[in-house]
Amino acid sequence: MQAIDRLIEKINLKNSCVCVGLDPRFVQIPDQVKNPIKKAMGETKESLAQVLVEFNRGILETVEPYVPVVKFQISFYEQYGLSGLQALIESSKIARKIGLEIIIDAKRNDIASTATAYANGYLGKVDVWGQKEPIFDVDSITINPYLGSDGINPFIQVGRENEKGLWVLLKTSNPSSGELQDLSLNTGELVYERLALQLQDLGNQWCGESGYSNLGMVVGATYPEAAAKVRKMLPTTFFLIPGYGAQGAGAAELKPFFNSDGLGGIVNSSRGIIFAAAQSGEDFKSAARRAVIAMRDEINQLRTDRSGRLF
Amino acid sequence: MQAIDRLIEKINLKNSCVCVGLDPRFVQIPDQVKNPIKKAMGETKESLAQVLVEFNRGILETVEPYVPVVKFQISFYEQYGLSGLQALIESSKIARKIGLEIIIDAKRNDIASTATAYANGYLGKVDVWGQKEPIFDVDSITINPYLGSDGINPFIQVGRENEKGLWVLLKTSNPSSGELQDLSLNTGELVYERLALQLQDLGNQWCGESGYSNLGMVVGATYPEAAAKVRKMLPTTFFLIPGYGAQGAGAAELKPFFNSDGLGGIVNSSRGIIFAAAQSGEDFKSAARRAVIAMRDEINQLRTDRSGRLF
Repeated sequence: MQAIDRLIEKINLKNSCVCVGLDPRFVQIPDQVKNPIKKAMGETKESLAQVLVEFNRGILETVEPYVPVVKFQISFYEQYGLSGLQALIESSKIARKIGLEIIIDAKRNDIASTATAYANGYLGKVDVWGQKEPIFDVDSITINPYLGSDGINPFIQVGRENEKGLWVLLKTSNPSSGELQDLSLNTGELVYERLALQLQDLGNQWCGESGYSNLGMVVGATYPEAAAKVRKMLPTTFFLIPGYGAQGAGAAELKPFFNSDGLGGIVNSSRGIIFAAAQSGEDFKSAARRAVIAMRDEINQLRTDRSGRLF
Repeated sequence: MQAIDRLIEKINLKNSCVCVGLDPRFVQIPDQVKNPIKKAMGETKESLAQVLVEFNRGILETVEPYVPVVKFQISFYEQYGLSGLQALIESSKIARKIGLEIIIDAKRNDIASTATAYANGYLGKVDVWGQKEPIFDVDSITINPYLGSDGINPFIQVGRENEKGLWVLLKTSNPSSGELQDLSLNTGELVYERLALQLQDLGNQWCGESGYSNLGMVVGATYPEAAAKVRKMLPTTFFLIPGYGAQGAGAAELKPFFNSDGLGGIVNSSRGIIFAAAQSGEDFKSAARRAVIAMRDEINQLRTDRSGRLF
């Protein structure tokens, strides 16, 4: 089954379009996870990586009934080098085993054979002495469009061959995203609007059975007016929506992202769920469960099915 | 010493502004490197990684007298996962030991704490159970500007604290780079021209003793007219120049990149040097030596020192 159809199947199954971001900041991980590992393994990069895996395992098993998909921000693992990436691979295997779709938030970008190397590593298989081996083996990856279609086509090709998907940065959630993305063109369009049309041309050739494209786009919850515009322009595009919760956007900002079929977006929250216990002093898993259910319900209040009924 | 001053010192010492790209495509590595490792270790990911290291060692020791700096394209290592990145780290240590400056071509991009994680991992130190440890420990990194200054400032901050540098993508060498970078704004500027000014504002606050900024920019050799424009706009910016050789640009295209002091750019060649033996059937090190000397001399024909004398 194609990536976008698998995602939609799980959205419908769980009645949820929440994506949990596994961005573990080590200092915020509770001592109940750290202490036994520190005692057994000492204070090494390997034991640190093990803490990340065990924390992720706790979160993944807790949120699984309530979400179709999780997202790993690779920088939080990559910063620790090999042991960090080992923790990412192990955590990703746990997510796979319990049936969650997996996004890797890597924002990779390069051209030709270089982009193909990234695409093979994350979405496909890599040639090791003539044998093809999967390496990171996730369902989809975020990529950056600054280099134009040369930097996107290799990911589409490998994605097609392996039933994987893409999320291309369109309008990012951060305060300075407009410095480049909102520049006004001589046609009257903004940069991200023009890019939306360019990406749609690529994505329309790669739709699933659902009618949605396997080439999704990233649009920040912090820019609901931009969302309203691109939602109209791009009816068959799924959005990956960061910026909810810790970054400032609430549920009201999310309505413009969804189509009238109740689909078209997944909303990511990282800190707001995985570190929900920070304020309350509660157990981290109980707090994450409470936070993810609240977020799911809040968003379902905005989504309607084809008959106009709320989810 | 600040990163840009270290680079210029080595350019002057070697009388060369060539950067060799260590982008080892496994299938193109000669059997003389592969066979002994295969015999000793078998056909595993670890032995593949060892082949990359030994090939890189041969190239690094060969080109060291003729170049100030080398560039590792991380995707060619990352695609193999942990063993590939282990090969990158080992190769980078060899480069460091023989006194070469090291660029990691990672084109990373993200915001706030996420960008800080990347910056710490590549340019700074990472907190491991309260101890600060270097992880990738290179001299500079390429980054992508699509997210605006939020995505650049964390790299500047970590770079300042650790005497490291940046290369921000401005006008990339690939055929489709214009799809986004050459869009015309309502002010009459092109997107990359506006970005050049934005980046100059950031870079001017971070210059070395040489007067050049530690925030360099990537401009492709394949676009000499763009180079002529941005060279005039950005007198204190160093350019990292890909696209020479295998990507199609020759020495004539390089003249607009340099200032009248003979500085302002380093020119990368990857395949054209490391796989120079492919056509000739020569030993890979002899062929690389010949190719790098020819490239250095060809470029020095275009550079003049402050008195107008050719290098």
